[in-house]
Amino acid sequence: MNAEIIAVGSELLTPQRIDTNSLFLTGELNNLGVEVTTKCVVGDDYERLADTVRRAIARSEIVLLSGGLGPTEDDVTREAVALALDRKLVFHPEISDQLEHRFRQTNRKMAEVNKRQAFIIAGAEILPNDRGTAPGQWIDESNVSIMLLPGPPHELKAMFTRQCLPRLERLVPKQVIRTLVMRVAGMAESDLDQAISPVYKKYSNPVTTILAADGDIQIHLRARCTSEAEARALLAEVAGPIELVLGDRIYSRNGEPLEVTVGELLKKRNATLAVAESCTGGLLAQRITTVPGSSNYFLGGFVTYTNRMKIDWLGVREETLLQHGAVSSETAEAMAVGVRRRAGSTFALSITGEAGPEPAENVPVGTVYVALANDTGCQVVHRQFLGDRARIRSFAAQMALDLLRKKCTQLAV
Amino acid sequence: MNAEIIAVGSELLTPQRIDTNSLFLTGELNNLGVEVTTKCVVGDDYERLADTVRRAIARSEIVLLSGGLGPTEDDVTREAVALALDRKLVFHPEISDQLEHRFRQTNRKMAEVNKRQAFIIAGAEILPNDRGTAPGQWIDESNVSIMLLPGPPHELKAMFTRQCLPRLERLVPKQVIRTLVMRVAGMAESDLDQAISPVYKKYSNPVTTILAADGDIQIHLRARCTSEAEARALLAEVAGPIELVLGDRIYSRNGEPLEVTVGELLKKRNATLAVAESCTGGLLAQRITTVPGSSNYFLGGFVTYTNRMKIDWLGVREETLLQHGAVSSETAEAMAVGVRRRAGSTFALSITGEAGPEPAENVPVGTVYVALANDTGCQVVHRQFLGDRARIRSFAAQMALDLLRKKCTQLAV
Repeated sequence: MNAEIIAVGSELLTPQRIDTNSLFLTGELNNLGVEVTTKCVVGDDYERLADTVRRAIARSEIVLLSGGLGPTEDDVTREAVALALDRKLVFHPEISDQLEHRFRQTNRKMAEVNKRQAFIIAGAEILPNDRGTAPGQWIDESNVSIMLLPGPPHELKAMFTRQCLPRLERLVPKQVIRTLVMRVAGMAESDLDQAISPVYKKYSNPVTTILAADGDIQIHLRARCTSEAEARALLAEVAGPIELVLGDRIYSRNGEPLEVTVGELLKKRNATLAVAESCTGGLLAQRITTVPGSSNYFLGGFVTYTNRMKIDWLGVREETLLQHGAVSSETAEAMAVGVRRRAGSTFALSITGEAGPEPAENVPVGTVYVALANDTGCQVVHRQFLGDRARIRSFAAQMALDLLRKKCTQLAV
Repeated sequence: MNAEIIAVGSELLTPQRIDTNSLFLTGELNNLGVEVTTKCVVGDDYERLADTVRRAIARSEIVLLSGGLGPTEDDVTREAVALALDRKLVFHPEISDQLEHRFRQTNRKMAEVNKRQAFIIAGAEILPNDRGTAPGQWIDESNVSIMLLPGPPHELKAMFTRQCLPRLERLVPKQVIRTLVMRVAGMAESDLDQAISPVYKKYSNPVTTILAADGDIQIHLRARCTSEAEARALLAEVAGPIELVLGDRIYSRNGEPLEVTVGELLKKRNATLAVAESCTGGLLAQRITTVPGSSNYFLGGFVTYTNRMKIDWLGVREETLLQHGAVSSETAEAMAVGVRRRAGSTFALSITGEAGPEPAENVPVGTVYVALANDTGCQVVHRQFLGDRARIRSFAAQMALDLLRKKCTQLAV
């Protein structure tokens, strides 16, 4: 079965806003085995929206509209869908009463204009909205199911999950959809694709999607089958050869990010971690601490943004900085060793580099040194990254986490 | 004049991918005074795409397509637009030769399939692509201008800017578009909208857009006029009353984020800053150091994720932690005073709180204390935030930066 999604609202046609409801809806529909074939964004324009709805119901079995159910004259979804279906709008006094009750509960008086939200397309089922004032609507027209959903994401998600999903599950032929997400660090997207495309290109099921961002690549495999066992077997058939090709560069087989993988490895070894950052300015510590429960293994970190702080806080020797510079292998090592001593941690990571935009100290922009200290010593890795300040910082933090991952799993760096 | 944007590619209909080219194109078109009335995403489906193009040219003066110009059979934009316009595709041997030359330069042999990229719709102007292999196309059909642009953003942006923009400037009646972006901290979106909507609702020009995220609100005013002076006057006419209403809650009048405003204030006073973070785990330092040149005023920071580190690194007294807890006004103050002493900075900020998901130490999730120390003492602010871990951390970092902004501008907190 095919679906189309229509997002309504002139604010979604500005350079600042994007319709993200459709990503949630697409994920949910795909999980049912329904493909999305077209997505549209239409402004608050009655005629144009009616035209768009007419086209959608002529060629798809499921049509979802989001937004345009508010109380003001800008909100034209009810009227436009009624026009497209050539049905009447019917005033429901019980909805109007519920709205008035809702307003009274918060000591406000309902404006007359809110009564517009009590109009329902003739023959539609009302979808209650427990998170907002706009009720949704479900309409069956010949072989097409049409859903009118509110625009605010938390209202839309709750209504779709509670009201639409059970109805769709009865409607859509039963399928099993299973997704496997592998994540890879330290590879360029083109190199990865060249390595694994001979494997996945042979299969249209599972569908393979590759997503890359700042040194982190996700490989999504989505299988659509008639049974759980078949889906698992199909995923294993494709994932197996991919794992053989990529080996230890895969750090996650369940979609979790690198900071979660590293956290699991540290917990398993009863190990602790502390960090010292220069160019990343706290980004590494911030990533590590996004993980709930990270306080079980992460002790703390230093952001030493000046030479003075590197000396005073981490015990880097002044002559190391003078002789080799703040961005050097020697300084990275002294930072890691220094923070490890001060924290008493099992491991310590340090990052020093030049994130730009202007180079300092005769070091080219993009130069990064990462050091990892433990009780047996300290290793330092040097990389040269391309890109702007944000990208260099992201790559540096990713590289540091991956270095620790490899140490924990005793991989060669 | 009105425009429609059609993004082509089945990968844009997955739950992971979104068309962001249309945001760039919308911004550029708006700057010319052209409004975007519909955006569509269509998969690699020849018939459906041709149908979508037909509808677009029937109702808009400008139609932009992005993607689907690659060499493989999935790439159907050329064929679909030719079908919609009922024109032929013409093979251009000179384009094929250029492509072969490009491949030879990188020591690769051109695959036969790449010749598909040398087909041009009859009567179209060829738009050279200096960043990739797919040439673009510009077609004039009755009163409609149609542009075929490549999908990769860096190719699309370069081609649009160099090839399409000069042509559109000749086509579109001359207008001056000016935008003013104000930013506000520490207000709820609904409160802000209630306060300023009586002002901006009176104007359809400038257009007002309000964008909110984690304690940070942007107010965009976009004026469309026939002269620079008129645009400036119109913006001032609306911005003036908004500034009166919001007053010092506006921290930026040029769209820059709070960390830039704070950096400017510190530089102006020749002041320096150091930070100590618990629940934000480095997020505050990370935000401060996203600003190029922040090393001129930011000395460094501590992420103290355990009581031991708060004691050893910051000099927080053990009895303070025992008596009041790690998440308390007293601990926040001791952290700020401690880091200021260790850094020798003019100002020091500290954050301690409970970001969840599970409450610890009998403190509810969302509790945050922020302290600001300088040579005259230390002030502590307590807030209770709602939401998940990421949201609580964002709000806490924003609150800390805003506290420092107010101190620097001698505002009441």
